[in-house]
Amino acid sequence: MPTQFKGLSAFPITPADPKGRVDTAAVEKLVGRLAAAKVDSIGLLGSTGTYAYLSRAERRRALDAALPVAGDVPVLVGVGALRTDEAVKLAQDAKAAGAAAGLLAAVSYTPLTEDEVYEHFVTVQRESGLPLCIYDNPGTTHFRFTPELVRRLSRHEGIVGVKSPSPEAPGGTAHLAALRAVVPEGFPLGYSGDWNVTEVLIAGGDAWFSVMGGLFPHTALALTRAAQGGDATEARALNARLEPLWALFRELSSLRVMYAAAGILGLTQAEPPRPILPLGESARARVAETLKALNLS
Amino acid sequence: MPTQFKGLSAFPITPADPKGRVDTAAVEKLVGRLAAAKVDSIGLLGSTGTYAYLSRAERRRALDAALPVAGDVPVLVGVGALRTDEAVKLAQDAKAAGAAAGLLAAVSYTPLTEDEVYEHFVTVQRESGLPLCIYDNPGTTHFRFTPELVRRLSRHEGIVGVKSPSPEAPGGTAHLAALRAVVPEGFPLGYSGDWNVTEVLIAGGDAWFSVMGGLFPHTALALTRAAQGGDATEARALNARLEPLWALFRELSSLRVMYAAAGILGLTQAEPPRPILPLGESARARVAETLKALNLS
Repeated sequence: MPTQFKGLSAFPITPADPKGRVDTAAVEKLVGRLAAAKVDSIGLLGSTGTYAYLSRAERRRALDAALPVAGDVPVLVGVGALRTDEAVKLAQDAKAAGAAAGLLAAVSYTPLTEDEVYEHFVTVQRESGLPLCIYDNPGTTHFRFTPELVRRLSRHEGIVGVKSPSPEAPGGTAHLAALRAVVPEGFPLGYSGDWNVTEVLIAGGDAWFSVMGGLFPHTALALTRAAQGGDATEARALNARLEPLWALFRELSSLRVMYAAAGILGLTQAEPPRPILPLGESARARVAETLKALNLS
Repeated sequence: MPTQFKGLSAFPITPADPKGRVDTAAVEKLVGRLAAAKVDSIGLLGSTGTYAYLSRAERRRALDAALPVAGDVPVLVGVGALRTDEAVKLAQDAKAAGAAAGLLAAVSYTPLTEDEVYEHFVTVQRESGLPLCIYDNPGTTHFRFTPELVRRLSRHEGIVGVKSPSPEAPGGTAHLAALRAVVPEGFPLGYSGDWNVTEVLIAGGDAWFSVMGGLFPHTALALTRAAQGGDATEARALNARLEPLWALFRELSSLRVMYAAAGILGLTQAEPPRPILPLGESARARVAETLKALNLS
């Protein structure tokens, strides 16, 4: 199993100016913190990294800034695009920059069929040579991977893992079992959706693709190690403590909360790409209070 | 009421090569057919016109090809983009090229709030000076305009109409009433979704934003004139006759069927942008049979 798909994969924001020009110094700072914390991998240009809103040139600048700072920590890179040919180029760029793998979401405007998504994935993988992780993110793409489509894709050499949205507890065991039954032995099954992930990690999920881990890697690592090390009691206690943060994520979205948090920490004053608006003052004050009360690190 | 939002607005495909380069000769041919048929307006670069998959430069090429051929027929242009600043540039391009109005959808990746969509629309309108029609297309954007948001936007000078998805019969009367109650008098309420549109036109909808009308303007005009002229019996009969086409639209999507139909008519052999795949042989044969049986024009 590729080690980059086990344990904690931390997903930072990608600070950029209002015109979409990436602040490479801020990227270096954010990625450097994650490398120093020894996360298991870094998820650059994920959904939280606003990949969908950045041009190819700017995504390359983010890559070139992040990869040297990441050092030995493998970097997964979001390579999704609406057009297949664009996703191919983005995957080629990620490979050339030294990414360990690509994260490919079924980005769509016209709703896609399963065959179209299959062809899209196989084409991007074949024409780039980059190992790809299936990025199942129905909350943004509105495409949902069935176990049958995951099965087909997992047979393709070069498609090396899947990132699924965490089902609400107690659905994790059943979701894992449904996928394990159809993928090759050892095929990594990772999960996103911070507020639901603990139970699926306890149930045997291989990786946590974590938004909060992008800013608070030590806290996220402690939860990951407890859940994957078999200490379910400790993992659940750590998760319960984080409930005020999860409540903000659910209400305001994890992306908007993380931009506010990065500002509160003094790491970057960048705002999300418009039309996404930064949180207003009162929501931002609630984020600040929550961060203070939870003493995240 | 701006006349461009009354009656039949015909939405052609935008033929392009596999790299996304627009075939301007084919655009001229398709738009020329619509102008000759005297449709009430042309919807260039709508969802069926694959605007989301075309670069700014190619969208400009399509505009420059279409506008002169459209002649006196007003042209509405899709100006949607994921980023607000990009949508502004696209709207500026459309205005410079002579478009009568822009069609702006709430294209999203990160799900947007109502306030974000409001700011997006007002910014694009203000910074371009282009009159904008609200393009409510939850099937592709997964954002749904509430009557309250339509109310707020309809108060903004320069936002001049709305294109809603047709509710299934008999929901048209209620949908129209809900919007009429909140928008200024005379604010045009148009509808898309060919297979449900007849009843909402009979109920008083101002415009049909029509996919089939992009290739078969005479057939679509006959239905529009009957429905809007008060001959509900004739409109329903014409619509019932088209049911085999609507069944294909529902099953295979109107976009994929229209690409196949344009090929069958010998107008263009262009395929949709990948990852969208052209219809397979058997589906294409069913489209050919249906076109032949219905004798569309």
